Amino acid sequence: MPDHSATTAEGRPAAVDAGLFSPVHAGTPVEREVTDEAWLRAMLDAEAALTRAQSRLGLVPPGHAETISRVARTAEFDVVDIARRSRETANPVVPLVQELTAAVAAVDGAAAEYVHRGSTSQDILDRGLMLMATRALRVILADVDRTAAALARLAEVHRDTPMPGRTLAQQAVPITFGLKAAGWLSGVLDARRSLRRLVEEGLPAQLGGAAGTLAGYLEYAALAGVSTSTYPAALFTAFAEELPLRAPVLPWHSIRTPLAELAGALAVLTGVLGKIALDVQVLSRTEIAELAEPGRPGRGVSSAMPHKRNPVLATLIRAAAAQVPLHATVVTQCLVAEDERAGGAWHAEWHPLRECLRLAGGAAGLAAELAAGLVVFPERMRANLDLIGDLLVSERVAVALAPILGKAAARELVNRASARAATEGLRLGALLEADPITSGKIPAEELRALLDPTRYTGAAGPLVDRALHRYHEER
Amino acid sequence: MPDHSATTAEGRPAAVDAGLFSPVHAGTPVEREVTDEAWLRAMLDAEAALTRAQSRLGLVPPGHAETISRVARTAEFDVVDIARRSRETANPVVPLVQELTAAVAAVDGAAAEYVHRGSTSQDILDRGLMLMATRALRVILADVDRTAAALARLAEVHRDTPMPGRTLAQQAVPITFGLKAAGWLSGVLDARRSLRRLVEEGLPAQLGGAAGTLAGYLEYAALAGVSTSTYPAALFTAFAEELPLRAPVLPWHSIRTPLAELAGALAVLTGVLGKIALDVQVLSRTEIAELAEPGRPGRGVSSAMPHKRNPVLATLIRAAAAQVPLHATVVTQCLVAEDERAGGAWHAEWHPLRECLRLAGGAAGLAAELAAGLVVFPERMRANLDLIGDLLVSERVAVALAPILGKAAARELVNRASARAATEGLRLGALLEADPITSGKIPAEELRALLDPTRYTGAAGPLVDRALHRYHEER
Amino acid sequence: MPDHSATTAEGRPAAVDAGLFSPVHAGTPVEREVTDEAWLRAMLDAEAALTRAQSRLGLVPPGHAETISRVARTAEFDVVDIARRSRETANPVVPLVQELTAAVAAVDGAAAEYVHRGSTSQDILDRGLMLMATRALRVILADVDRTAAALARLAEVHRDTPMPGRTLAQQAVPITFGLKAAGWLSGVLDARRSLRRLVEEGLPAQLGGAAGTLAGYLEYAALAGVSTSTYPAALFTAFAEELPLRAPVLPWHSIRTPLAELAGALAVLTGVLGKIALDVQVLSRTEIAELAEPGRPGRGVSSAMPHKRNPVLATLIRAAAAQVPLHATVVTQCLVAEDERAGGAWHAEWHPLRECLRLAGGAAGLAAELAAGLVVFPERMRANLDLIGDLLVSERVAVALAPILGKAAARELVNRASARAATEGLRLGALLEADPITSGKIPAEELRALLDPTRYTGAAGPLVDRALHRYHEER
Amino acid sequence: MPDHSATTAEGRPAAVDAGLFSPVHAGTPVEREVTDEAWLRAMLDAEAALTRAQSRLGLVPPGHAETISRVARTAEFDVVDIARRSRETANPVVPLVQELTAAVAAVDGAAAEYVHRGSTSQDILDRGLMLMATRALRVILADVDRTAAALARLAEVHRDTPMPGRTLAQQAVPITFGLKAAGWLSGVLDARRSLRRLVEEGLPAQLGGAAGTLAGYLEYAALAGVSTSTYPAALFTAFAEELPLRAPVLPWHSIRTPLAELAGALAVLTGVLGKIALDVQVLSRTEIAELAEPGRPGRGVSSAMPHKRNPVLATLIRAAAAQVPLHATVVTQCLVAEDERAGGAWHAEWHPLRECLRLAGGAAGLAAELAAGLVVFPERMRANLDLIGDLLVSERVAVALAPILGKAAARELVNRASARAATEGLRLGALLEADPITSGKIPAEELRALLDPTRYTGAAGPLVDRALHRYHEER
Repeated sequence: MPDHSATTAEGRPAAVDAGLFSPVHAGTPVEREVTDEAWLRAMLDAEAALTRAQSRLGLVPPGHAETISRVARTAEFDVVDIARRSRETANPVVPLVQELTAAVAAVDGAAAEYVHRGSTSQDILDRGLMLMATRALRVILADVDRTAAALARLAEVHRDTPMPGRTLAQQAVPITFGLKAAGWLSGVLDARRSLRRLVEEGLPAQLGGAAGTLAGYLEYAALAGVSTSTYPAALFTAFAEELPLRAPVLPWHSIRTPLAELAGALAVLTGVLGKIALDVQVLSRTEIAELAEPGRPGRGVSSAMPHKRNPVLATLIRAAAAQVPLHATVVTQCLVAEDERAGGAWHAEWHPLRECLRLAGGAAGLAAELAAGLVVFPERMRANLDLIGDLLVSERVAVALAPILGKAAARELVNRASARAATEGLRLGALLEADPITSGKIPAEELRALLDPTRYTGAAGPLVDRALHRYHEER
Repeated sequence: MPDHSATTAEGRPAAVDAGLFSPVHAGTPVEREVTDEAWLRAMLDAEAALTRAQSRLGLVPPGHAETISRVARTAEFDVVDIARRSRETANPVVPLVQELTAAVAAVDGAAAEYVHRGSTSQDILDRGLMLMATRALRVILADVDRTAAALARLAEVHRDTPMPGRTLAQQAVPITFGLKAAGWLSGVLDARRSLRRLVEEGLPAQLGGAAGTLAGYLEYAALAGVSTSTYPAALFTAFAEELPLRAPVLPWHSIRTPLAELAGALAVLTGVLGKIALDVQVLSRTEIAELAEPGRPGRGVSSAMPHKRNPVLATLIRAAAAQVPLHATVVTQCLVAEDERAGGAWHAEWHPLRECLRLAGGAAGLAAELAAGLVVFPERMRANLDLIGDLLVSERVAVALAPILGKAAARELVNRASARAATEGLRLGALLEADPITSGKIPAEELRALLDPTRYTGAAGPLVDRALHRYHEER
Repeated sequence: MPDHSATTAEGRPAAVDAGLFSPVHAGTPVEREVTDEAWLRAMLDAEAALTRAQSRLGLVPPGHAETISRVARTAEFDVVDIARRSRETANPVVPLVQELTAAVAAVDGAAAEYVHRGSTSQDILDRGLMLMATRALRVILADVDRTAAALARLAEVHRDTPMPGRTLAQQAVPITFGLKAAGWLSGVLDARRSLRRLVEEGLPAQLGGAAGTLAGYLEYAALAGVSTSTYPAALFTAFAEELPLRAPVLPWHSIRTPLAELAGALAVLTGVLGKIALDVQVLSRTEIAELAEPGRPGRGVSSAMPHKRNPVLATLIRAAAAQVPLHATVVTQCLVAEDERAGGAWHAEWHPLRECLRLAGGAAGLAAELAAGLVVFPERMRANLDLIGDLLVSERVAVALAPILGKAAARELVNRASARAATEGLRLGALLEADPITSGKIPAEELRALLDPTRYTGAAGPLVDRALHRYHEER
Repeated sequence: MPDHSATTAEGRPAAVDAGLFSPVHAGTPVEREVTDEAWLRAMLDAEAALTRAQSRLGLVPPGHAETISRVARTAEFDVVDIARRSRETANPVVPLVQELTAAVAAVDGAAAEYVHRGSTSQDILDRGLMLMATRALRVILADVDRTAAALARLAEVHRDTPMPGRTLAQQAVPITFGLKAAGWLSGVLDARRSLRRLVEEGLPAQLGGAAGTLAGYLEYAALAGVSTSTYPAALFTAFAEELPLRAPVLPWHSIRTPLAELAGALAVLTGVLGKIALDVQVLSRTEIAELAEPGRPGRGVSSAMPHKRNPVLATLIRAAAAQVPLHATVVTQCLVAEDERAGGAWHAEWHPLRECLRLAGGAAGLAAELAAGLVVFPERMRANLDLIGDLLVSERVAVALAPILGKAAARELVNRASARAATEGLRLGALLEADPITSGKIPAEELRALLDPTRYTGAAGPLVDRALHRYHEER
């Protein structure tokens, strides 16, 4: 492992990734929660929490626990140096514990004896990961809440705004924009439910020791004369009281369901946000123009085309949605982990899980902004409804004629008339009025009403109400 | 689309997939629930249920609903013919409805008018899919239950059976086989919890009509003089009473969270089963031989090597675990679906979701058999514990010496002694007894006890009890 | 493994998959090449070829090789029965060899001694797979050729047909449809190059015996008194002469690069076809309507909406493109295969690789039809070019004004005018003519020419020529 | 998009990713080639190259091209600031071009007019990406070469070192370690061939302008009085002469085969390296111990267990192999890109492709070190061969008895004897000598030779020679 140092022209170490090619999350609050530095801090927080928990159980003198906590909170560590040393042990915990121990020893040599007692690398890394994820999920859920609120408002305001429904990229029958927004909302609520469940239940703390038997922890308990029979449960509980994590039933070093469930829920979240973004892109196409992204000076500027305003929020959300499911797949595949700690499957989780958090979080922030500021053009929706004229309600006419002509014959006749109307650019209504079979079968007034697309939105309104009812219930 | 017919030498149509390259599920009960024929039947069941629901709401004369139900249940359809015709419409529902309507008409022309009223292809396909999935999940959960029960028994029986714990493919510290089985169990319980939640809540029925507004359904309600304001909720309820599906808040033609959550839960299930299988493979390696798969005549025969008995159950489970996460990824990615019905994202879900069901189901059946019949060799575990001798408890000695020498010095000394023991093939205990620094610091008797690997299993027993407690609570 | 039999109402075994939910390939020629039956036949062909190769090298009496070849070609085997028995050995070869041996013995007991000599299950399965893939690739490449030819024609015919170029879902600057078709073509040519390379080089035969040492084969050679030093190379060569496969350098039981490369190339193929399909979907949207799929009676019918003609070819291609990359990922991941034959990684490849072949093949057939029959509406392209008027060439005006005003000032001025034109629905040209800064700077005539979108297609024509040149060179 | 700044305790911006959780590549040469800073530099290099190419064609005064090149090479840019501003335009090029233009203007206002002439964001980003990838591939290929050389040496040295072959996790028949190494080598050579092909052909430059027509470039050519008919080809050629990239046939803004092929080749590379790592892990298991990773002080230290030496190189390679195929899948899926520039599919490629480069590169470096220093224990291989005794050659005895007893009867008898030998812990040879059917059929001496596993390695040696021959040919 050669040791070339990566430095910029001026000699400072170059960031591997400062977000330059990740505009989805560059500089966002969620990104701040999941930087290398933040994860390092979370591991240190967890290390300190362990010592405090052990102290409450009589294994560590309180003063030493305080010292360790203070040093863990305030000492500065060289992330790049630890990163490089991590290659020798395949994880950054070994050098980190060395650094922390040295930093504590510099303050109080006796306290340093109590650092990392009974623990193993994976305990610390996993605890830190769960703590970091908990913090990130708080930010993400706040943005999901904002998104849901904005979508609910769109659904309510546009409950009865007619627009073309589209299936397989073709105009189908009318819907309302409120129903579309209600659909978006229901996807977001589904995704939120899973994430909330994880947060409410609490992500699990990790405490297992070398191979998950807690043997190392018990050894120190025995040294301190603490009963080892009640110690495991007591340690789990004390630790969970120090951090917003739940006590696990068992150590889960190689039973990685908590991570797979978290990654899966984040993949679903970006999926439902990606659906919104894709719809916004389609509906803000130049030729459709029913929606526009919220604008602001400088936003969506093209480097070549002065007239363009690119839908950058939707673009970035889609970029996130294209990536997160695959990162989540890595995490899910890492469930197949051999032995008490897997050689590779564990190490492969770290980066993908963080990517899930920051890309899903970035997408949630973008979606909140997109939903809150989305510009709706009801008049364009109306104009597009008229594009293919009354063909859009051909389904309805077929139903109305069914009791008169029989279902099959009615369908057959409307099929024929629709095809002619489409080919010759005629109105379906005119053809039906002129057709000897249908002429007079339905009064002209009634036929006109039947053929008005804005009056064929079915139960769109009541369905919106159902979605809003759910939204209010789950608030 | 050329129409070459795929036939065998004798002229009968060749099965595209009869399971020849899917030993994971060939001929299993779960496979039977998800064949093309079964899905077709589920779509027909759903179609009949719709007519009965509409009949209860006054839209279809009861006799006609009965006729349609009977024909849907008993008529034979040519799956291969419908499959080929499906290429013209990108889904099999259009030709299927034609066939069903014709079959009903052959019995009662008037009843045929009531087939598929107000519905759209996706309504039927999705309903059938959810019904089929519900049926398959019942089979899968039964096998998951059997697996969990067998693992609980293994955990209980071997609560205190010592064996080497292994991390990064190296022996680490002792564990018990019961703890390993308890870990497997906890993964299975996590996966079961998600699947149970889906089943208990009920998979959602799909009722939306052409673009999800229920317009077509309402049109027929209006024709029948039924109030359209209360009709949507009534229809959802009536339909859900006819089938083991829940009434959805909204149509979900392009809000595919129900499928993504289902696929995700199945991926997690195969992941936790894959972990068990991988551990079984490792531990039944010729050189380790701590476990063996349940044997039976003919099982695991090699075509070339008479002496071999291949661990086929674990092999097949791993094959499933290698595939399901990727199928599930397709389904999750299909969340990003444009418009009211997506042109491609919808169609891409079908096969992968079925693969998730049959591979996860196949794996669950195999896991139940594997767990129930797993052969455990405690004496081999014991022998392997002795392989590297007391080095396996070097962690413990370091802890025991810490209060005497200081943590760092103790660790340093044990490191040195361990390295020497490993290199020269000596016992760590002998070296420590001979070392002037440690000699006499710990009484010989006590040192021997400290160095006995079977006495260094930490809280393995109590942790097993915790897992069993959870198992009994969740039964 | 319970043995419930999956049968239809009438008692015949139900096909697991008859293509009902795979309209991408149901009933196509490529599907016919990769059915269970076809793969079984390919394994039998490979088995017979082995015997003939051994016969040429003096190990098998010629008459026996003929007998085995004849029986392998003509005997009927029960695919479903073999599929179920395959669960005992984790692959279908063990029961297949039993059946073949019995079938040969029924004809000539002495010949039966020579079946499967020295071979192992994986040898046969891999050989059959490579033979099947070779056959399928021939079909696929023919459809790729048809697609390329049709795209080349579109590029040539529409070399100078102006249409709006679109970036980030917004109209950007004009292009020609020929350039778009040339882009599609270049993707297809790239994909074809990789596939052709594989076919021209030949997929590798598999001959290794139990653990890849050829020991079993050599043992029989020794029995027959044939020199074992030259035998390996001779056997590779003789076998490769019997089938359209190349002699490998080494057995590749657990070095699976040939499969990964094949799957990867098929994923790229469906990706480039998916790009075409997505563009066709976008451009045939009701509001854009620049393209339409080739129609034919019954094609694209909706079960609910009489007026609709769904773009089913593009829809199905996209469905394939959503699936193949994930199937290919399974195959690529199976490169990480332990030992001389992997327990799971090998078994996981079979189904995904076949899916790659049949979905990519199905997509190629659909693409050939789509490209050959694509309906182009130049007048709609022209009309859409006028939608945002001369804003579409704002880039050009900014360039033209640069030498007069400076690049930054020109850009700034055009930005401002464009924003105003877009907001107030005015023409950019009118604003520039009226602007005191620009007024008179460019003669009115010249300004009008500058602002004509049909005259701002850059090097579209020459670029098309470059693509066509490549096409003709690679034919 | 809130603008919270991510800073450390001391106020300096925290690196999003400094490699702390990516020990696969932290601090390696390949990582240095693909940092944000490096990519930024590559974009600037490409921007400068464009100006020089335009200068050679008479569009830019040579002095200005020099000025721009110098500023592009030496000016410092604030990566974090550009990253954040990139959120407004969904890519970092717009702010970068602003910064570069300002930096040039600060030196020479006239030269600044010539920055980014005719170009579009994607041109620059893609050019920079291809340049960066070219540089990274050089580093990667050097490590692949070192790996191949070390594997060739292992194959040669251990051509005839017998060890157990293993299939489905069970000992099967003997192989030689040289054959195993030759298999590893052949996978690496396959992967190298694809990567070399890409490098030798050259990755393509990107030049297209706003929508791929080169219109902007041509506009400036026209301004300069340069013939626009020959300009496109001239520009491609001149640009390709300035950088180690090839001239493309067409702009490829939304025809992304070059990226998909690159990502696919890197996925195959990590796959074959992952296979090596997995084998090393298996064979260095405590109970098998046939291989050991190269050690060095501090390497593989455990934070809990003094005696352990973890195989960290193999662990990290496996972690890379678990991730790269999924990153590559994102890139392949981005082939399905709408229009002339995709809104999301383009943006989703950046990070995954970089991950492919740095993880594959990291893995290649680790593999080179692993292969070069791998410690082989022939005596352990020999001991493991004796574990199941002569059962390992049961295949051979069955063949030897076939001409005497008939193939089926011989197989049947050996099966029975093997089962008994395994169950009762006896030698197969002893049983056969005692069996009345076989006793005396094969002379005792010959039987003993037949049953010596070290003499049943088949053509392992000549196969190694074939692999080495290929290696030398491809050097």
